[in-house]
Amino acid sequence: MSDKKDSKPCHHCQSRSASLPADTTTVHYEKFWLYRHCSSVEQSHRQAQKAGQLFSGLLAMNVVFLGSAFISSMIFNRVAITLADVWILLSVLKVLCVFWVIYYLMGTSRKPHAILYRDSHAGPIWVRGSVLLFGSCSILLNVFEIGYSTILVRCKSNVEIMFPVIAILFIGTQIYFLWHHSKDCIQVQHNFTRCGLMVAIATNLLEWLLSVTNDSLHMEMESQLREVEQRFIGKAPSSHPHWCNETAMCVCPNTTICRVFQEGYILLYPFNTEYSLVCSSMLYVMWKNVGRTISHHHSLEKRPKFKLKGVLFGPVLGTSAVIIGACVFMMYQIQAATLDPSRQVLVIYFTYYIVLLPLMSVCAVVGTLIHALEKKELDTVQNPTRSLDAVLLMGAALGQIGMSYFSIVALIASNRRDLLNRLALAYSVLIIIQNITQNVFVIDGLHRRHVEKEEDSKEVQNCEACRQRRMSVLELGQEIRKVSLSYIHTYSHLTWKRRVLREISFFLVLSNIILWIMPTFGSHPLFENGMERSFYGYSTWFVIVNFGLPLSVFYRMHSIGGLLEVYVTA
Amino acid sequence: MSDKKDSKPCHHCQSRSASLPADTTTVHYEKFWLYRHCSSVEQSHRQAQKAGQLFSGLLAMNVVFLGSAFISSMIFNRVAITLADVWILLSVLKVLCVFWVIYYLMGTSRKPHAILYRDSHAGPIWVRGSVLLFGSCSILLNVFEIGYSTILVRCKSNVEIMFPVIAILFIGTQIYFLWHHSKDCIQVQHNFTRCGLMVAIATNLLEWLLSVTNDSLHMEMESQLREVEQRFIGKAPSSHPHWCNETAMCVCPNTTICRVFQEGYILLYPFNTEYSLVCSSMLYVMWKNVGRTISHHHSLEKRPKFKLKGVLFGPVLGTSAVIIGACVFMMYQIQAATLDPSRQVLVIYFTYYIVLLPLMSVCAVVGTLIHALEKKELDTVQNPTRSLDAVLLMGAALGQIGMSYFSIVALIASNRRDLLNRLALAYSVLIIIQNITQNVFVIDGLHRRHVEKEEDSKEVQNCEACRQRRMSVLELGQEIRKVSLSYIHTYSHLTWKRRVLREISFFLVLSNIILWIMPTFGSHPLFENGMERSFYGYSTWFVIVNFGLPLSVFYRMHSIGGLLEVYVTA
Repeated sequence: MSDKKDSKPCHHCQSRSASLPADTTTVHYEKFWLYRHCSSVEQSHRQAQKAGQLFSGLLAMNVVFLGSAFISSMIFNRVAITLADVWILLSVLKVLCVFWVIYYLMGTSRKPHAILYRDSHAGPIWVRGSVLLFGSCSILLNVFEIGYSTILVRCKSNVEIMFPVIAILFIGTQIYFLWHHSKDCIQVQHNFTRCGLMVAIATNLLEWLLSVTNDSLHMEMESQLREVEQRFIGKAPSSHPHWCNETAMCVCPNTTICRVFQEGYILLYPFNTEYSLVCSSMLYVMWKNVGRTISHHHSLEKRPKFKLKGVLFGPVLGTSAVIIGACVFMMYQIQAATLDPSRQVLVIYFTYYIVLLPLMSVCAVVGTLIHALEKKELDTVQNPTRSLDAVLLMGAALGQIGMSYFSIVALIASNRRDLLNRLALAYSVLIIIQNITQNVFVIDGLHRRHVEKEEDSKEVQNCEACRQRRMSVLELGQEIRKVSLSYIHTYSHLTWKRRVLREISFFLVLSNIILWIMPTFGSHPLFENGMERSFYGYSTWFVIVNFGLPLSVFYRMHSIGGLLEVYVTA
Repeated sequence: MSDKKDSKPCHHCQSRSASLPADTTTVHYEKFWLYRHCSSVEQSHRQAQKAGQLFSGLLAMNVVFLGSAFISSMIFNRVAITLADVWILLSVLKVLCVFWVIYYLMGTSRKPHAILYRDSHAGPIWVRGSVLLFGSCSILLNVFEIGYSTILVRCKSNVEIMFPVIAILFIGTQIYFLWHHSKDCIQVQHNFTRCGLMVAIATNLLEWLLSVTNDSLHMEMESQLREVEQRFIGKAPSSHPHWCNETAMCVCPNTTICRVFQEGYILLYPFNTEYSLVCSSMLYVMWKNVGRTISHHHSLEKRPKFKLKGVLFGPVLGTSAVIIGACVFMMYQIQAATLDPSRQVLVIYFTYYIVLLPLMSVCAVVGTLIHALEKKELDTVQNPTRSLDAVLLMGAALGQIGMSYFSIVALIASNRRDLLNRLALAYSVLIIIQNITQNVFVIDGLHRRHVEKEEDSKEVQNCEACRQRRMSVLELGQEIRKVSLSYIHTYSHLTWKRRVLREISFFLVLSNIILWIMPTFGSHPLFENGMERSFYGYSTWFVIVNFGLPLSVFYRMHSIGGLLEVYVTA
């Protein structure tokens, strides 16, 4: 009886061991002092993993809640909790993170057998590239902030120059860390690494929350810019009861450098928000990968390469969309620089979207239909990276969809019936439809890709097997004819659908690229047309837009990644 | 070759068919016009299920976003979107829901083979009971609102009486529906039912959001109550710039009935919030169960019965906690009725919590340690009901924890160092610790329960098998001695740990009951002590408390359910 029991491990271990690699000698299994009575090393490893994830998750939750309470207190009671208090809290967290990252680079990752596996799906080049881009912009933003504070040093405390310095240090370290280590599946010091990663995630989330809600510097600068403007025109400055005490002493001197700092700050602000979001998602993937062992088969899995072959309409249509979009964007930017975007340029901007978005929606719907027509089956096997992709796509779309609904309600309720209002309304409705249809298409596509490859190879194997079995001189001719006929039939049948899928996904990739560029580099018509801003009030609409816009930029980025996968595997 | 292919279905179908019942002839498999090319009926059924869930989920998402935008617009721009507009939207949704529920009761559920299975885990009696309780209170609340509006009919529009009538109709229908049909796994008209359920969920969520954020009626009543009071004292009414125009005409006449309506409204308000939350979670489970087929084995699974045996300290300690708590609660309520809760009663209230919470935390930690010491393994098989339980526990705890962090920041920042402040601070910190430790204990316990039962029966079977095999006259004596010794050893070893686990979970059940009763029936010291309220401002703290309190009541309710499971299966 006992023999029988030993030879048959429990089903947990069985299911686990299937995904374990052969060279288990070098793997550091996790241990946890609570779980010493487990039947097997692997079982104890899994329980320790769960416990470690739970505790580091609780740590992050508490840090995030504490920080959120700080930030909310600052918003609702500016006397008791000041922006400086929030900055002190964030700086402490950032310094902690920097120390942990240095320890990770110097200590943890250099231990023997520390990094046995690397997750090939984690941190693809376009994500790391955007971390580099957004991070560099964030560093520049902080440099501008230092410059601005230095000029106005009389009315700013000295401590305020310290915070951007710490921020620059933090951003720089994090870029280096994510660039080189985002694929790591670390196998030593599991719990310490998890806690470090979770503190870093919490810090990035709090940084995001602060930049979403804190409009104080914007308000200050906007009122100053307006004043300077009016001084140029010759009018008396309009009364700003909130700022009039400070502006007497703290007004930006009328030098070019100060204006550059101000406008650069406003231009670069969205990048910082974006940077925190992207870092959080990458750190989360790293956290999921702590202690993960990847089977040999999986780690060697080759991803199909990107080939530009057999597509024509997609690239042509997409490229023209990009070129027209770039022209609209430049017109918009030139106009926006004059601080008074005319109605005309807003009309052109909205019209461009109103033409492009229905086209994209129709393409996505057609793509979904073709997916459904194909005889492929849904791949419902668990796949953490893909699940995260789908959740991120859906979650990021919520930002854009929510912003559109807010805009729709404001536009309908304000009840003005001019052309611009109608265009803005159509724009918001179409954005919602486009987001939803595209999400359905991409997620559907992601769930199909792997199965097909398997089926292809299976079919080839089957043919091989049946050939060997039935081979005889007489049947050979018939057999070859049958096989090749069915092959040609399948191929011609597939290529039609595949070609359309590739055209569609290529077009969508290019369209998403231009829709990504426009808000990223500074066109925010929803903020600048002023209708919703006057409806909800400056602060509220600032929060809504600052919440929605980075998510929508993030959404476009992720869509491009997802659509490329669909293209490559179609 | 083709024979071989037919006889070996793909692994998706295999894994599915394991959970399918034998009598498949009466099951209505779902179909979806998009997926006609599937290899099997079951595969097409699964794809149709996914598609139906996706589309009904998207419908709900859009309704929720539209409603949220309406409610936010009302908050930030009371001129363009009024409360009446929001009520019209909600009433339309409620009428739709009522029609759908009537159709479900009359049409869908009476079709042949409509309800073949019932989910035994869904809608346990304590959840349905709380729906009945909270729903009745909500109906009463709406009756009070009608009465209040009737008295002040001069300054209220007639439409305002319509809304509570529709609300009463909606609540009544929903109570009946959830009481009788919450266990249904409906097998016909899948997509229509999913959409109906999702609209109902969205309506409940919007109702919750509105009651969390809409403090207008509270403000109106509070200012009136204060005025009436001051008129009694003989002072001139203090100036309320916001309300002074309306109060001239719309003040509640000084009759008993009007005061009853006002105070009843304020007392019953939290129940309505709670009701929407509980309904949403029940409807969500029903939505998950649409089209679900439950295997015969699973549906007949008997749950262990509740037995009060072998526990002593837990009930004694718990009962004394309940009795003391009830006394504190009554003292608090009597004082609170005078509209000026004295410091003394707040001190007693906080002291009670400060004694009870550490005791509960220690018990939960000890329980977790004992769980870890046991040789049971974690049950990591997928179980949707249990996953939902764990997510709801964690999610509901967030409300309480968030509120505590807000309170902590306010108390520290306001920097007053009297006894009451320190007590409130200790209370908030202890609440966080207690929530976290209890969650870890309950979730750990829920993940262990099923395995043990299986192991017990397996051991008995194994013994039986080995006995029959090795049975011989000589070995019989030795065998019996060996088996009984090991049995006694196991039993005595188990009972010690089991007894402690049962004591702990029994104590925690009783403590959670009293902690559930106190906030549910009206003690809100965090709102009434006034410290946080003056720190964040009335409206903000109203939102925070109205967001956190119903979640914390919901959390206690769910903890009691979870702890009872742990007790019964320990």
